[in-house]
Amino acid sequence: MSDRRKIIIDCDPGHDDAVAIMLAARNPKIELLGITTVRGNQTLEKVTKNALNICQYLGIDVPVCQGLGEAIVRKSPPVEERVHGDSGLDGPVFDPLTKQLDPRHAVDFIIETVLNADSPVTLVPTGPLSNIAMAIKKEPRILENIDEIVLMGGAYQHGNVTAAAEFNIYADAEAAHVVFSCGRRVVMMGLDLTRQALCYPEIVERMEKVKTRAGKLFVDLMKFFCMTQKRTFGWEGGPLHDPTTIAYLIDPSCIETKDMYSEIDITGGPSHGRTNCDFFNLMKDKEMNSKVAVKLDVEKFWDIVEDNLRLYDSI
Amino acid sequence: MSDRRKIIIDCDPGHDDAVAIMLAARNPKIELLGITTVRGNQTLEKVTKNALNICQYLGIDVPVCQGLGEAIVRKSPPVEERVHGDSGLDGPVFDPLTKQLDPRHAVDFIIETVLNADSPVTLVPTGPLSNIAMAIKKEPRILENIDEIVLMGGAYQHGNVTAAAEFNIYADAEAAHVVFSCGRRVVMMGLDLTRQALCYPEIVERMEKVKTRAGKLFVDLMKFFCMTQKRTFGWEGGPLHDPTTIAYLIDPSCIETKDMYSEIDITGGPSHGRTNCDFFNLMKDKEMNSKVAVKLDVEKFWDIVEDNLRLYDSI
Amino acid sequence: MSDRRKIIIDCDPGHDDAVAIMLAARNPKIELLGITTVRGNQTLEKVTKNALNICQYLGIDVPVCQGLGEAIVRKSPPVEERVHGDSGLDGPVFDPLTKQLDPRHAVDFIIETVLNADSPVTLVPTGPLSNIAMAIKKEPRILENIDEIVLMGGAYQHGNVTAAAEFNIYADAEAAHVVFSCGRRVVMMGLDLTRQALCYPEIVERMEKVKTRAGKLFVDLMKFFCMTQKRTFGWEGGPLHDPTTIAYLIDPSCIETKDMYSEIDITGGPSHGRTNCDFFNLMKDKEMNSKVAVKLDVEKFWDIVEDNLRLYDSI
Amino acid sequence: MSDRRKIIIDCDPGHDDAVAIMLAARNPKIELLGITTVRGNQTLEKVTKNALNICQYLGIDVPVCQGLGEAIVRKSPPVEERVHGDSGLDGPVFDPLTKQLDPRHAVDFIIETVLNADSPVTLVPTGPLSNIAMAIKKEPRILENIDEIVLMGGAYQHGNVTAAAEFNIYADAEAAHVVFSCGRRVVMMGLDLTRQALCYPEIVERMEKVKTRAGKLFVDLMKFFCMTQKRTFGWEGGPLHDPTTIAYLIDPSCIETKDMYSEIDITGGPSHGRTNCDFFNLMKDKEMNSKVAVKLDVEKFWDIVEDNLRLYDSI
Repeated sequence: MSDRRKIIIDCDPGHDDAVAIMLAARNPKIELLGITTVRGNQTLEKVTKNALNICQYLGIDVPVCQGLGEAIVRKSPPVEERVHGDSGLDGPVFDPLTKQLDPRHAVDFIIETVLNADSPVTLVPTGPLSNIAMAIKKEPRILENIDEIVLMGGAYQHGNVTAAAEFNIYADAEAAHVVFSCGRRVVMMGLDLTRQALCYPEIVERMEKVKTRAGKLFVDLMKFFCMTQKRTFGWEGGPLHDPTTIAYLIDPSCIETKDMYSEIDITGGPSHGRTNCDFFNLMKDKEMNSKVAVKLDVEKFWDIVEDNLRLYDSI
Repeated sequence: MSDRRKIIIDCDPGHDDAVAIMLAARNPKIELLGITTVRGNQTLEKVTKNALNICQYLGIDVPVCQGLGEAIVRKSPPVEERVHGDSGLDGPVFDPLTKQLDPRHAVDFIIETVLNADSPVTLVPTGPLSNIAMAIKKEPRILENIDEIVLMGGAYQHGNVTAAAEFNIYADAEAAHVVFSCGRRVVMMGLDLTRQALCYPEIVERMEKVKTRAGKLFVDLMKFFCMTQKRTFGWEGGPLHDPTTIAYLIDPSCIETKDMYSEIDITGGPSHGRTNCDFFNLMKDKEMNSKVAVKLDVEKFWDIVEDNLRLYDSI
Repeated sequence: MSDRRKIIIDCDPGHDDAVAIMLAARNPKIELLGITTVRGNQTLEKVTKNALNICQYLGIDVPVCQGLGEAIVRKSPPVEERVHGDSGLDGPVFDPLTKQLDPRHAVDFIIETVLNADSPVTLVPTGPLSNIAMAIKKEPRILENIDEIVLMGGAYQHGNVTAAAEFNIYADAEAAHVVFSCGRRVVMMGLDLTRQALCYPEIVERMEKVKTRAGKLFVDLMKFFCMTQKRTFGWEGGPLHDPTTIAYLIDPSCIETKDMYSEIDITGGPSHGRTNCDFFNLMKDKEMNSKVAVKLDVEKFWDIVEDNLRLYDSI
Repeated sequence: MSDRRKIIIDCDPGHDDAVAIMLAARNPKIELLGITTVRGNQTLEKVTKNALNICQYLGIDVPVCQGLGEAIVRKSPPVEERVHGDSGLDGPVFDPLTKQLDPRHAVDFIIETVLNADSPVTLVPTGPLSNIAMAIKKEPRILENIDEIVLMGGAYQHGNVTAAAEFNIYADAEAAHVVFSCGRRVVMMGLDLTRQALCYPEIVERMEKVKTRAGKLFVDLMKFFCMTQKRTFGWEGGPLHDPTTIAYLIDPSCIETKDMYSEIDITGGPSHGRTNCDFFNLMKDKEMNSKVAVKLDVEKFWDIVEDNLRLYDSI
């Protein structure tokens, strides 16, 4: 048991969040301790319901705890309805929900779980970093038992909300500032990487042959997601952002990273929410606080996805 | 019971915080629900110990809960040792501490207490606003049962840390931003007001004649405080910042206020932490979110102090 | 001749600019080398025409040079029509204009005049600092022959455009940043001072008895100005901002100043354009680059105004 | 004559500036109206001397005018000695200088030349934008006779001074803000493009066969430049930044560009000087003020360089 990597997924499902959960929940290298939710792709209520639906549908038996419905300092930006639809997870149809929300606040669940774990926990945020930042600030002792924070967010090239900023970081830049400066290593799966994880129609066709509940959910999700990505950003295939975090945990060799100093812009100016990643180590007096993903082994990535979809019950 | 004003004092004692607690604890118009602590004048551990010592010395039987030891986003500035000494409350000598810390986190104590109160609660922060901001963001429903936030902090004239900013706001400007934009009215006792509450030697002499435990504590505290204020800022008398909040609650007529829009600077630039108070209502599209104190009835103020020191046991 | 103080007035007339010109032009202690204009209270074309009209009306025979019609970096804010009317100098009626504009650009006139003067020149800006900043940056050698910069602008208390900022500084904060950090002493007549120079109706009545062309112009101007100040800001009397600079040059004893470090906010945030004046010398590592006016000897000020209005031809 | 494109090169030579001048001066499609200098790679005095040396050595008979020795608002950052050596143009050895500096200030030369040109002028800045910005603000009417501004500067990926910013923009971000928002189209050759123009040793060998004075100067310059680029940034070949501007003017087909909105960060925060280029047109309400270079036809580029080096006298 102790050789499985303990993780908490902090997310705002979200189509790609759903796939991240899918990949993590059955993988033998990973021990999923719980799922926490945060406002991001949709309102807190909707993403929490989506997380519960995903767990119920796939039989994932872990606590789901609800967290922050707003950024920790500023007003949150509007939700990403264009991409994820009105429910935040449009596409699949779920049975009536019976899975119960865990009564603990996500921030307290993270604190308790990390403090009580007998080996270090990896935090895997795939939404805005509000819960993680608040947990760190409410109980800084958790830092000692966090081994790293593997997150989806940021970009060293182009943002997807403004020219400068990616949605998860922009949506709570101050929280991102807390996380990137907390002293624990951040592994950043930014848009530079996730835009290499494009889910083209042929990928959807390939996964249609995986006759499991997870395979079906993947297909239902991706058909909707690819359509809206194309409509919103003009991409031919939709970038499957969040699952890159889990793919990295399953097989780090599928993602090339580079150690560097990264700093979040919280000025409130035109670069607000930018992840300034010092790719060329120009600022030599700064500690390298992040491993930034630069290159995806695309073939290996889709193999990981397929392999993990196959771990679920057949349909 | 229901006609007493329910308050929580969130503080970083601190000499003037101590006097604020003193004034509030026995006043018949006030029901002190608890005391929470936050890093500010000194480290969290020291201010918490000081809060417990004050309660034990004066027989104040309310929960004391420890809160945040760092600002919610940035690194906290250094503590104010020059003003409050190494312990954060130099001057008086206390018996060995037996009063126990309440095990609840200050943030959760505030949330629970406000949610469960049968009438609205007034928050009285006299330190950095880290705990209050986190409570509001962790559980926004508390806002419905907060009637107002009567705080010491800010300045529309001169700061005391930088030209622009006052210590409590500067020490956690993002938290202040949360509080000033939370939708509940802020009553701001800024330096503009508190610099009218100067504790000259003759005030100390006057309170020496109040032969109660509180009177003695006041005198022991103020002798040290006035000395350091003079040494640090060159004031003839030390401004008794924090007690103005309680004086206002006891008798609002002792402090003239003006409704205005106030906005906290969180740019990280030279005005970081400034309370931009729109005194002349120039920004007409902004809601007046604050009552800013402008004038102290000095005589009435010291009468309130003396009257409330007299409510304690004789020595 | 060499004992007269050489000055250039850089202005955006403007009612109070007009009075500043009036006071300077005939005073035996002052040698007015020229007048330069800058967009501010009104558009560049209008304020230039106003400067010419004032000179023609009062027989002031100095070059008038036109300068910048926009701030040096950002887009200028709207002109102050509410205060100065459509012409920028509503109130008096002037004869058809015959006085010619000097063909030199204000920036070049300032550079040439300062470089060629046989004794140091005092710059007296009473509008946004665009011309002065550009002259300093275009030819930094002028700094050696500038003795000080006596300007109207800024506030250490309340702004008059935003809560934080006064109009002249706000209108070109980057230019103000250049001027305050140029290495020459700035004497700052901010709103804190000029709001003590209130032109009440009884002052207008007093000046009505000065039967000179200047006296008549003063009265015509002030009747309009006081009316709009009251309408716009609610002041009982209108603050006669700009003439305080000249009064200071004529008799420094009429204005109490304090040496301090002042820094302009150019973050683009809510405090943009603030003059952060370190009144209490909190930032001890900063050089005291400014003398900031704090107190006006009101009686002496109006005596100076009257005395100088009397220096013109009778009507 | 009128079919030649009129240009002014505003530069801080600088090895790559020197090559840009070389390419432009003899090309039959270009009419070089003059060269202006600005502090950047080295101090103003040094870069001006370098510009004169280049012209004298190559027999380029155009006015050389000196401009700003400091950024228009802030203090300039240190010069780039690591890359360009102590003289700013280390490597070649020049004869004693006889070519005279034109007495006009660069800012005034730009204004006069543009206003007087009988067809639109293209500005080609290859250093910080201080001169160009000041010219635009001093005389906005020049904008009507500028057809575009083809500059070297910025990056939509990684900076070379900070993680966020490229040197030319960072060195005077406020000036860059003026230029990018002036209403004329900016063609931006950023690091994203110029890092494709790597001058490897085989390129130097190739140009060694061009037996002209320009060929020799190119080789002398590039040997030094490639060495320092490698030492400073670790590049295998040195990026020949500035000549891409001239290559684009000679044959636009060698550089692929994309229309987009670009905005300069002037907050003074960690992204200060960033060119936020809205690659994916996310900010749809913003006008596309720039053509940003994205891809270099490397072969064609070096052919242009070689062809133009051959236009000089043989040695």
